[in-house]
Amino acid sequence: MAIDDVKGPSVQELLSLPRLAPLVPMLYVAWTDGELTHEEIRALGAAARVQPWLDLRASVVLAQWLDPLHPPSPLALAHLREHIRRTAERLESSDQQSLAELGSQLAQLLGGQDALPAPMPELARTLAPLETSLGLSGAEAVRTLVAPVHRDDTSPEPSFPVEALRAVLDRTYSAERAQVRAWLAEPAFRHADERDTSAYRAQVFTWLKALADRGLGKLAYPEDLTKVDLGAFIAAFETLAFFDLSLVIKAGVQFGLFGGSVFFLGTERHHRELLPKIASLELPGCFAMSELGHGSNVRDVGTVARYDEQRGDFVVETPSEGARKEWIGNAALHGRMATVFAQLEVKGERHGVHALLVPLRDENGQLLPGVRAEDCGLKMGLNGVDNGRLWFDSVRVPRENLLNRFSQVSPEGEYTSSIPSASKRFFTMLGTLVAGRVSVATAGLSAAKSGLAIAIGYAEQRRQFGPAGASEVRLLDYPTHQLRLLRPLATTYALDFALKHLVKRYTERTEEDAREVEALAAGLKAYTTWHTTRTLQEAREACGGQGYLAANRLPSLKADTDVFTTFEGDNTVLMQLVAKSVLTGYRQQFEDERVFTVMKLIVERASAALTDRNPFQARRTGSEHLRDGDFQLGALRFREADLVASAARRLRKRLGSGMDSFQAFNECQDHLLALAHAHVERVVLEQFIAGIAWVEDLPTRTVLSKLCDLYGLGCLMDAGGWFVENDLLEGAKAKAIRKEVARLCAELRPDAVALTHAFGIPDTCLAAPIGLGHLSP
Amino acid sequence: MAIDDVKGPSVQELLSLPRLAPLVPMLYVAWTDGELTHEEIRALGAAARVQPWLDLRASVVLAQWLDPLHPPSPLALAHLREHIRRTAERLESSDQQSLAELGSQLAQLLGGQDALPAPMPELARTLAPLETSLGLSGAEAVRTLVAPVHRDDTSPEPSFPVEALRAVLDRTYSAERAQVRAWLAEPAFRHADERDTSAYRAQVFTWLKALADRGLGKLAYPEDLTKVDLGAFIAAFETLAFFDLSLVIKAGVQFGLFGGSVFFLGTERHHRELLPKIASLELPGCFAMSELGHGSNVRDVGTVARYDEQRGDFVVETPSEGARKEWIGNAALHGRMATVFAQLEVKGERHGVHALLVPLRDENGQLLPGVRAEDCGLKMGLNGVDNGRLWFDSVRVPRENLLNRFSQVSPEGEYTSSIPSASKRFFTMLGTLVAGRVSVATAGLSAAKSGLAIAIGYAEQRRQFGPAGASEVRLLDYPTHQLRLLRPLATTYALDFALKHLVKRYTERTEEDAREVEALAAGLKAYTTWHTTRTLQEAREACGGQGYLAANRLPSLKADTDVFTTFEGDNTVLMQLVAKSVLTGYRQQFEDERVFTVMKLIVERASAALTDRNPFQARRTGSEHLRDGDFQLGALRFREADLVASAARRLRKRLGSGMDSFQAFNECQDHLLALAHAHVERVVLEQFIAGIAWVEDLPTRTVLSKLCDLYGLGCLMDAGGWFVENDLLEGAKAKAIRKEVARLCAELRPDAVALTHAFGIPDTCLAAPIGLGHLSP
Repeated sequence: MAIDDVKGPSVQELLSLPRLAPLVPMLYVAWTDGELTHEEIRALGAAARVQPWLDLRASVVLAQWLDPLHPPSPLALAHLREHIRRTAERLESSDQQSLAELGSQLAQLLGGQDALPAPMPELARTLAPLETSLGLSGAEAVRTLVAPVHRDDTSPEPSFPVEALRAVLDRTYSAERAQVRAWLAEPAFRHADERDTSAYRAQVFTWLKALADRGLGKLAYPEDLTKVDLGAFIAAFETLAFFDLSLVIKAGVQFGLFGGSVFFLGTERHHRELLPKIASLELPGCFAMSELGHGSNVRDVGTVARYDEQRGDFVVETPSEGARKEWIGNAALHGRMATVFAQLEVKGERHGVHALLVPLRDENGQLLPGVRAEDCGLKMGLNGVDNGRLWFDSVRVPRENLLNRFSQVSPEGEYTSSIPSASKRFFTMLGTLVAGRVSVATAGLSAAKSGLAIAIGYAEQRRQFGPAGASEVRLLDYPTHQLRLLRPLATTYALDFALKHLVKRYTERTEEDAREVEALAAGLKAYTTWHTTRTLQEAREACGGQGYLAANRLPSLKADTDVFTTFEGDNTVLMQLVAKSVLTGYRQQFEDERVFTVMKLIVERASAALTDRNPFQARRTGSEHLRDGDFQLGALRFREADLVASAARRLRKRLGSGMDSFQAFNECQDHLLALAHAHVERVVLEQFIAGIAWVEDLPTRTVLSKLCDLYGLGCLMDAGGWFVENDLLEGAKAKAIRKEVARLCAELRPDAVALTHAFGIPDTCLAAPIGLGHLSP
Repeated sequence: MAIDDVKGPSVQELLSLPRLAPLVPMLYVAWTDGELTHEEIRALGAAARVQPWLDLRASVVLAQWLDPLHPPSPLALAHLREHIRRTAERLESSDQQSLAELGSQLAQLLGGQDALPAPMPELARTLAPLETSLGLSGAEAVRTLVAPVHRDDTSPEPSFPVEALRAVLDRTYSAERAQVRAWLAEPAFRHADERDTSAYRAQVFTWLKALADRGLGKLAYPEDLTKVDLGAFIAAFETLAFFDLSLVIKAGVQFGLFGGSVFFLGTERHHRELLPKIASLELPGCFAMSELGHGSNVRDVGTVARYDEQRGDFVVETPSEGARKEWIGNAALHGRMATVFAQLEVKGERHGVHALLVPLRDENGQLLPGVRAEDCGLKMGLNGVDNGRLWFDSVRVPRENLLNRFSQVSPEGEYTSSIPSASKRFFTMLGTLVAGRVSVATAGLSAAKSGLAIAIGYAEQRRQFGPAGASEVRLLDYPTHQLRLLRPLATTYALDFALKHLVKRYTERTEEDAREVEALAAGLKAYTTWHTTRTLQEAREACGGQGYLAANRLPSLKADTDVFTTFEGDNTVLMQLVAKSVLTGYRQQFEDERVFTVMKLIVERASAALTDRNPFQARRTGSEHLRDGDFQLGALRFREADLVASAARRLRKRLGSGMDSFQAFNECQDHLLALAHAHVERVVLEQFIAGIAWVEDLPTRTVLSKLCDLYGLGCLMDAGGWFVENDLLEGAKAKAIRKEVARLCAELRPDAVALTHAFGIPDTCLAAPIGLGHLSP
């Protein structure tokens, strides 16, 4: 079902008629100019219809396209514009003096000289009067139409080459990014506007299959498994997230979570048999970890896998309603197999959570005996993903279905593991989630980029209120509107650099730094997805009523990503994990005694480091000082070090008095969250500064430096409360920082739209009429 | 269409069979206990089916209800629980010792002794063994089931009588509130879970008609118009907002905006002819003010109403695409008439924006000649409201259709007005929007209450993580979770008092204070709806994956209210209006010269008032001092006064140097928004404190005082940056305030659930399985 009740002429029909091709630009402008009256549109229709080269069918379609009572829908116009722009890119010159000339050249390009209804010059000559009668300035109209999207002709020139900045953002895995963009450019990948859940799910599955056919799955699991580079898959995933987010999550479930569990936890026999089928989507699968009763605390899941040494197989059981698998992607409909996380029981002894493969459905999609599945039902967003619940009623699976990279059960029922500590084994198992967290963070950032591109594009076009007697003012010229949108834009750039750093750390991780990389992934996943939620909310509000319309995509961007702060680890839980990791030097786990010793060390070390390093001792308030990365970073480092020391002090006091570690950490919870936040922000700023240093093009480096200063000073502004509590910040400096933030916004304002172009979001993905700038009268 | 693909046994069928009535409590507990295995559920079914008093139909339905492969949906269980609780309320005693005893008594109550399948005592005796076999503790199960919703038996007792607090919240228009609650209790008003736009719109229209039949419209426009009290209608609207928000907005369009425009801008002939038809919904109508090009800046709308003195009527015209009426509720489908705001032109002279009645559709719903309407299409939420666009092509309406309370056009084409200044006339016209803003604020607050009731109810039940060897900890016992939910709870209470104050000021307004009331309405509308958006976002996240499911209502609450920050005046625009009103002593309008003089006066006055009043001079950091309303209010007053003075100083400087007032205000925009924010917060705290003073019940007053302190100190915490910039706040005090906020949250935690019960949200409206607390294992 297309957007409810929006009727209008068909783009497909229009573009299928070569005789109408010369008129296409004029048609587009007639509807989007905003100044044409219905009378004028009717007059245009009348004049066009008397052209001798129109046949009957072309006349009928043209009449439909020029009927003031049934105007084309915004989406139709967006597609039309895209068609014109893409075709025009292939023209040799772009100095056409009229829409007629542009239209004639486009027609020739598409159909060749012979397909033209009349010789080119003649055609342009007969069409020109129509244009003049409308009072359109031909050359200007052409420039607006063929110019890069989002900018009308009075928009300022950006201070930097957009392509250079785009190349900076695309510097890693650029071939994979280009590949995904090429896939998304195919006509199959157009937003569905689908409200019927079944149809939407079917569409998403079809899309996923098309991507698998084109090689998305093989990007993750190439035939030669020694060449696995998940960084390539993550880059593809990030780019894919400019398009439909249900598709992205479905891809993540199949190739990331299900495939990842087989790859990381399985051994050669699993790899050989399953990974090719997973990559080709022949075997759609699930990652069945969460349960109703245990979403975050997966160590205590209730599902049991009991080894039956008589029969030599495992019996998988859902012992209570709280142990049903919950929220499992692919489970309601398409999943044929699941990696199930269960308490492993062998000869009456429990060995903690292990993963094993459980077939769910046969090739006809029928559930297998003992397996029950239920649909989670309608969700806030992501309704193209079939999330479901799973129950297992004495389901038997062969012994070989245990993913046995770290633990084995012999036929006789002997349990062995290469990781003796049950706790360490559990955390190793959880390591499979890290790639998911990295991916979710990058996908969330892509969604934030789409939202900012739409909202900033609209703010550049939309005018409202103004001085008496003058034209109204663009929204983006209002200082508060700049603060609303350009601060999130700066954070988005900062996170782009930080996430590229994370991917590098992840792909290059060793056993030594694995824990640290996990903490980094957890922290950046939480920080980025919260940023996404806030940014899309702000973008929605900044577009007013237009932002509330589904056609302008902000509603689905917001609804689809809202759960990113929850899944792959609840953000609040993840941030506590970050704090604990930082405090214990990235050890896996707490044991009260050792923690106490560690805390003592930390307090001593941190206190020593903090002496004499108050970054705010300098009372300087000038721009030069404030825009010094060393100052900003020094302040963030100081905050982090101080929070480490003070949190350790508080914990030590409690642990020393015999409190158990759960309660001790609980009592310091807000302190730990503040520490995690400070830690992540320091890392992000550090990576942004480090990344910019490598940029060669000076104008590009200059604009990035401004974004970096805006991010850094924004962090300090938001952290003001902490600095004040510690008597580190005086009024004059606080005020100077706030004013510098406003000044940076004003300086970046002329570059704002170009900065969103550098994201390289395909127009067809953006597809928001307001983002394309032609709904503004 | 019900929730996608959720299949299961039917509640209606179950409750229609008297023979199954004794088993209903047991059925409910069997599914929600969370500990029963499928085997046990099957065993229960087998045991029950051999009861001699079951007929064939009852056996079949029972088997459906005890089929582990097709469990009842969460919504079905919620309805079942509600049925049991409502029926049990009518029982004389509540000390039943088993579910069987409870079931038997309920059956008797519903069907009488004769309808029972067996004599009472015997029935209980035969059922008891079933219960025992399940290992349920009968008396405890009964207590949990019949106890007030949201509390399990280990929840703490609240420190105050819930009914007393509810009475405080319902103190104004309590009869109207009770009336609406009674309407909503009727079976017709149940959430629709409707995704098909056409069906949902039809449902909303049916609901609205049912409300009109019951007298909702007459509450707004009684037969004796001297008795109009919009306060009563607003209270009804506020209560209605616990239910479906599309219905609320549709009611607001019909009775509030359309009816209000006729009432406020029309004269006796319009009232007599139209208000009864509006109140009965015989004449569904629209309020056609916004245009595509002019949403906020309505003074510049493009639609024209030209008087034709030859024919004695008006010609209404949409001169360009930018002038199409946009976002008009009721326009796409149901509206038969619209109040159209247009530039009035008489004898070639423009007289500014005026309102006139334009018929849109005939009695069959067919558009009238010259009128074009288009659907706005799918929206983020509120899809039960048919928002549309309107174009007028030389539509002629009689001279009498001008809403002529303030301006007349004689048959000969002579324009006269009782308000000579065009600008003052415009603002008088806009006065019709005030009631809408008050209503939107109250409806938004009701939605925030629903969200908090669900999230706090869930946080009380849901356990996750915990100390080794002990049961897991309730979410609400985590300090950060308390901060997340209890601070918004305190703000919600504060706003309840502030909005009651606003309604009183509105209903009692005079010509003298009308401007001040308008500014108050604008400020509270913006502040409240931003609070609603933030609170519902937090509530969604705090419920994790459960919060993302449509069945738990948070998605629709968030999506439906998201546009509240935009419509009836964009919040940012409204807050600037507040600041300007405060600065100019609630004058209507700026003229550069006068503004300059006013600013000078303000600077002088405010500077004098600020001397020696730094509320933070006291370095005291004890609880007693921090919890002193005088201290909190003093600090907020100081901030406001200082911002008034500094904003006036900055404006004066610019105006004095010849800058035009638009640009001067634009350059100080962030300053003005800060001032508006400070002003509104001061008013809210003031009204909360004043309201509490009248509460007689001591425990109720005590808990309200804690909420008030939490709100007041929360404001100071958030405003820390401003106080620091002005060197008014030292570290020790900032830290003390933060800690006191955390302490208040901990103190309020045992009362949290009871505080949401006091809102008096009907269970059927809440209808979120997690809010009813039985999805937690």
